[in-house]
Amino acid sequence: MEALHIASIFLWIAIILLAARAALLLERVGQPPVLGELLVGVALGNLGLIGLNLAEPILKNEIIAFLAELGVVILLFQVGLESNIKEMRGVGVRAFLVACVGVIVPFALGTYVVGPWLLPGLGFNAYLFLGATLTATSVGITARVFQDLGIIHSPEAKIVLGAAVIDDVLGLIILAVVSAIVTAGSVSPLDIGWITAKAIAFLVGAIVLGQMLAPLLGRGLSAIHTGHGMKFTAAIAFCLVMAYLADLIGLAPIIGSFAAGLVLDPVHFRHFKDPQVVQDVRGYAETAPASKKRTLLSILDHHAERHVEDLIEPLGWFLVPLFFVLTGMNVQLEPLFNPQVLGVALAVTAVAFIGKAAAGLVAGPVDKSMVGWGMVPRGEVGLIFAATGQALGIVSDELFSVIVIVVILSTLATPPILTAIARRNHIAETAQAT
Amino acid sequence: MEALHIASIFLWIAIILLAARAALLLERVGQPPVLGELLVGVALGNLGLIGLNLAEPILKNEIIAFLAELGVVILLFQVGLESNIKEMRGVGVRAFLVACVGVIVPFALGTYVVGPWLLPGLGFNAYLFLGATLTATSVGITARVFQDLGIIHSPEAKIVLGAAVIDDVLGLIILAVVSAIVTAGSVSPLDIGWITAKAIAFLVGAIVLGQMLAPLLGRGLSAIHTGHGMKFTAAIAFCLVMAYLADLIGLAPIIGSFAAGLVLDPVHFRHFKDPQVVQDVRGYAETAPASKKRTLLSILDHHAERHVEDLIEPLGWFLVPLFFVLTGMNVQLEPLFNPQVLGVALAVTAVAFIGKAAAGLVAGPVDKSMVGWGMVPRGEVGLIFAATGQALGIVSDELFSVIVIVVILSTLATPPILTAIARRNHIAETAQAT
Repeated sequence: MEALHIASIFLWIAIILLAARAALLLERVGQPPVLGELLVGVALGNLGLIGLNLAEPILKNEIIAFLAELGVVILLFQVGLESNIKEMRGVGVRAFLVACVGVIVPFALGTYVVGPWLLPGLGFNAYLFLGATLTATSVGITARVFQDLGIIHSPEAKIVLGAAVIDDVLGLIILAVVSAIVTAGSVSPLDIGWITAKAIAFLVGAIVLGQMLAPLLGRGLSAIHTGHGMKFTAAIAFCLVMAYLADLIGLAPIIGSFAAGLVLDPVHFRHFKDPQVVQDVRGYAETAPASKKRTLLSILDHHAERHVEDLIEPLGWFLVPLFFVLTGMNVQLEPLFNPQVLGVALAVTAVAFIGKAAAGLVAGPVDKSMVGWGMVPRGEVGLIFAATGQALGIVSDELFSVIVIVVILSTLATPPILTAIARRNHIAETAQAT
Repeated sequence: MEALHIASIFLWIAIILLAARAALLLERVGQPPVLGELLVGVALGNLGLIGLNLAEPILKNEIIAFLAELGVVILLFQVGLESNIKEMRGVGVRAFLVACVGVIVPFALGTYVVGPWLLPGLGFNAYLFLGATLTATSVGITARVFQDLGIIHSPEAKIVLGAAVIDDVLGLIILAVVSAIVTAGSVSPLDIGWITAKAIAFLVGAIVLGQMLAPLLGRGLSAIHTGHGMKFTAAIAFCLVMAYLADLIGLAPIIGSFAAGLVLDPVHFRHFKDPQVVQDVRGYAETAPASKKRTLLSILDHHAERHVEDLIEPLGWFLVPLFFVLTGMNVQLEPLFNPQVLGVALAVTAVAFIGKAAAGLVAGPVDKSMVGWGMVPRGEVGLIFAATGQALGIVSDELFSVIVIVVILSTLATPPILTAIARRNHIAETAQAT
């Protein structure tokens, strides 16, 4: 494998960003942009099927992989910024229930039903891993679809986001337990307690400390230096440190950046304003008639302030498409051509869907199918489980292919289905209103 | 060398960005921010001297190196965006003269005077390489200082930027010629002609084609989709493709991104506006008294449009400090402790300064010392020459250390000196005005 020259990576980034933008044309047929980015990725990643191995160096390139990972960290930071703790607390109990059901049902079905039934003779440990891979929701896809559809503030979105955070903690515990059972034959309750305590301490600590520190940080920084650059750097550094800390205790980095976004309330950054605009506003207000002054100032004032979300946005434009196109590129279509593997995979996928649909049922008085489908995407975490099992010699190549197909189908099916549900609801609402 | 985990890189980026921001305090003592970033880098990179090897993994990390390289590409794109071709053409002849003198004088002094005189017995080929390393201006530092001081639009800045582009073409030719002489004993005029033709064709082609295509691109894109994201992606993809093309023909990627910035005139992107702000403006204008409507609309209109520079800016905040801090980190202070090497290096540095000061003399009716000092920084290109010579067995370890020190001194001395010159001019202007 030939390593890519730095300038070639520049070219690849340009190609991926332009292809992702072209994929936005899907919006015209009512599909969320993220589906276009995924499909462009699938197309680029499977050029090998028609004899073109152009994209292969990109798939193995650690710089592109890093940028993609940074992209999803930034995406969840943005999603966190658009939410706040009070809203999340309001759906806390329901999110917890959704997470628990969404972990227990697929795990039980995978380990005790479809595993032994469809893949007989693999041994209990393999079924354990299959069950474990079906538990973890990959929230990046769903968050992006909700963002694309403009419903990130809906109660359904809050429940899915909250449940995904709890899911990740549960996934961490399950991986530790399953690995311990497979390697040591048993698991110590003390170890489980310790892992759980660390994860909970991180989440609670981040939120409590963050709520205390964020106003101080905002005020302290504005005392040293004003300007958008400072605001940007403070926000992004906080996001990256939290992603690092989450990773340090074994959670996904995106959980850390989401928590960072949650505690960073835009209010704490109110001190920073664009001096040029403020000056223009003042200058004009001097000459305006008194009656109009107030309205004028409030409109201009609103635009004078570039919120931290606006400052982060261009970084998102640069990095987020890389994540979704790369996710698509990692979808290797070849396993789909093996009918036997495909058959098993479709059955396991159905279980993966059913398990999360069941989770939606406990979401309370909201659109249950929206919540259930929002929890469907499986991604990195499932693949990490599968790879861990493969490294331990428990997960066979065939089982690994099955898991990869489940990840593919759950990733590609979710955006159009969520869009259809959202549109149906909108039509229902419109019908009710008239 | 232990490879860095992705999350550790997140942490390092946060540390570097925060340290770079802290370094901005230097502004309070009248120094440009870039000096602070360089010095923070020097401090981080030389922790090894007090027994802390914390920063070593970062120095060898290819992901951070990539981000830094992307940072300087973005910086020169920004600088290009702030300039335009008409202004550059106005200083073209003088920039050409400055570039030629600034290449010939240091090359001749290095090869025929200080080489044989201070480093006797190394052989003519080594002196050739020494001379060659002294020719190439590293424009990143100077561009950033001019930006920090708010004088990027001055004729001096235009001349230095234009000369740096021509410098890079001359440097490309010199490296080819010197390498050919060293390896083959002679050089074919046909090869020189070919290299020169390619480089000139790229620059001229980029500018002519760019001027023709940019308006079409702007109009075409606005027909498909409006919005800041599209504007951002079109601009950044153009920048990266041009950086790739420059690299492809042997020029520095920053020459490509600078050319991209030059041809992208903000006017071509006028079609893109923030729909929300436009709506607010319209709404308010409806209710405003007729006499005030025009002024109001023009103020609001100005802020409604987020220029492509504004959209790129956050990416600059993220990436540019990484370049300068990393440049500082690569400054290993150890060679400075060898008095003999240091003595030779100081003499060579003096020649490096004198050579570019001579170039300033042909800059025409501008501040000649500003132009001369603006051309002083040597960086990557000089080190690439030295490394090529080392690989050919021509440049000894001692000579390499000397070249490294020249790069260090020219890099660290330029920001404060340019700042002092700018301040002296400002004082002179103020005195004249009163």
